[in-house]
Amino acid sequence: MIIDRLFEAVASRGPVCVGLDTSPQLLPETLEATSSLPSAILNFNRKIVDATLDLVACYKVQIAHYEALGVEGISCYRDTLAYARSKGGLVIGDVKRGDIASTGEMYAKAHFSGDFEADFVTLNPYMGSDVISPFVPYLEKGDNGLFVLIKTSNPSAGDMQDLSLGDQPVFMHIAKLVHNWGKEYRGECGYSLIGGVVGATRREQLAEIRSAFPSLFLLVPGYGAQGSGGKDVSPAFIGGNGAVVNASRSIIGAHRDKPDGKTRFAEYAREAALAMCEDIRQWMG
Amino acid sequence: MIIDRLFEAVASRGPVCVGLDTSPQLLPETLEATSSLPSAILNFNRKIVDATLDLVACYKVQIAHYEALGVEGISCYRDTLAYARSKGGLVIGDVKRGDIASTGEMYAKAHFSGDFEADFVTLNPYMGSDVISPFVPYLEKGDNGLFVLIKTSNPSAGDMQDLSLGDQPVFMHIAKLVHNWGKEYRGECGYSLIGGVVGATRREQLAEIRSAFPSLFLLVPGYGAQGSGGKDVSPAFIGGNGAVVNASRSIIGAHRDKPDGKTRFAEYAREAALAMCEDIRQWMG
Repeated sequence: MIIDRLFEAVASRGPVCVGLDTSPQLLPETLEATSSLPSAILNFNRKIVDATLDLVACYKVQIAHYEALGVEGISCYRDTLAYARSKGGLVIGDVKRGDIASTGEMYAKAHFSGDFEADFVTLNPYMGSDVISPFVPYLEKGDNGLFVLIKTSNPSAGDMQDLSLGDQPVFMHIAKLVHNWGKEYRGECGYSLIGGVVGATRREQLAEIRSAFPSLFLLVPGYGAQGSGGKDVSPAFIGGNGAVVNASRSIIGAHRDKPDGKTRFAEYAREAALAMCEDIRQWMG
Repeated sequence: MIIDRLFEAVASRGPVCVGLDTSPQLLPETLEATSSLPSAILNFNRKIVDATLDLVACYKVQIAHYEALGVEGISCYRDTLAYARSKGGLVIGDVKRGDIASTGEMYAKAHFSGDFEADFVTLNPYMGSDVISPFVPYLEKGDNGLFVLIKTSNPSAGDMQDLSLGDQPVFMHIAKLVHNWGKEYRGECGYSLIGGVVGATRREQLAEIRSAFPSLFLLVPGYGAQGSGGKDVSPAFIGGNGAVVNASRSIIGAHRDKPDGKTRFAEYAREAALAMCEDIRQWMG
């Protein structure tokens, strides 16, 4: 099962997930000058993957940055996923889809087969279990998995997710739904193919979700540029596994303030990923 | 403002929104045989637009059906939007995006400019007001608008949207947030550029939202193939305006059970749109 592969990757290489949210502003001029923007981004992404593959758990590709460049950008999204996966990397397509079942079938087809195939995708639970059900046939094969939004890392996350249902906040109710949806799809590692997205920006909430649902594998965004560090994400882990921590700008943009960053951007990304891995490990306990 | 254009369209042509959720199963064989699938779909969509433009308010294009066909499908999504808009049609890009602000900026750029520009897009509010804020610069120009999910039409919508916050269900709380976000962006027609998606499948909830928030323009899915009729959607209207009602399969698939449907599919779509318009009007009161 793909969740066992992710578990193994964390065990052997650590919990860093590199966010390939490659905006034009992050490109070194050396790449920008040589080709079209989508080609430059693909070239950049390939070099980042080559430089980090042996020390990160996986990659997360935020499709918004590619959509913003139109059809050519979407081709670049496809090619970025394909490249990372061809090198043995695990890839999360950060698409946050969520729709009625007949539409969800199309999303499942789009992102678990064909051009945009990813190992995992992120989903938004606002429309309930119908969002999940079209992906079940793929989960049953074991080759793909999901991360469902539970508690996100952005400032306004609480507008809905922190609302009180009397005995618990909305995000705990959703965590329980996600846990129940995933019960039948556990790998040998004990974690389910249906994991959850829980931000690093509210440490106590992360701890609450982790302790209530120990078989939920967690995707933890918000490290680095969004302000959190190793201590903040530490409650996500059980014995050093069970979560991946995403950072994007702080890794793929690590070259920006360096005098030789234009040519050595991939090395700086590698250094930043390594430092992040060490920062997280020292707090894992 | 674009909401005034939509209001005028409903006033002059009625409240039908044609869903261009063009799955391969809906294509007549005559089109399928002649070209690649995305080309056949584009050809089909153009003929549907040509046959319905004078009697519908707008079109809604569900991007999932295009994503499922990969990069070529996404090109077809782009070309479908461009064609309908070039003919003077108003188009809702049904993308249900929703992410942190820095990512949302990319989505706003993607769907309110360039390849995928739509007049309106749908958004998912699970991550709170950060989902909306990146779209505000576009709203201020008045050329684009939003429909935010409030109460959806699918069976499991209640998993989250009907949860009780003590004094009200989640969907009413979200309706109020959407109402507040949209206060500053009202057109001459009195409706806001930030509207809401409220399904036709729960009539009493539709009535509750409409009466509490009279300046919310509503996008009402669920008519036809999802089981609702003119009576069910009637609470959405105030004086015959203030909402558009979406139907897809019951219009663009109206040809399927007709002996001459393969060649006359566009005429059957026109007839179905007209019948739907009349069905809704008889209940408007």
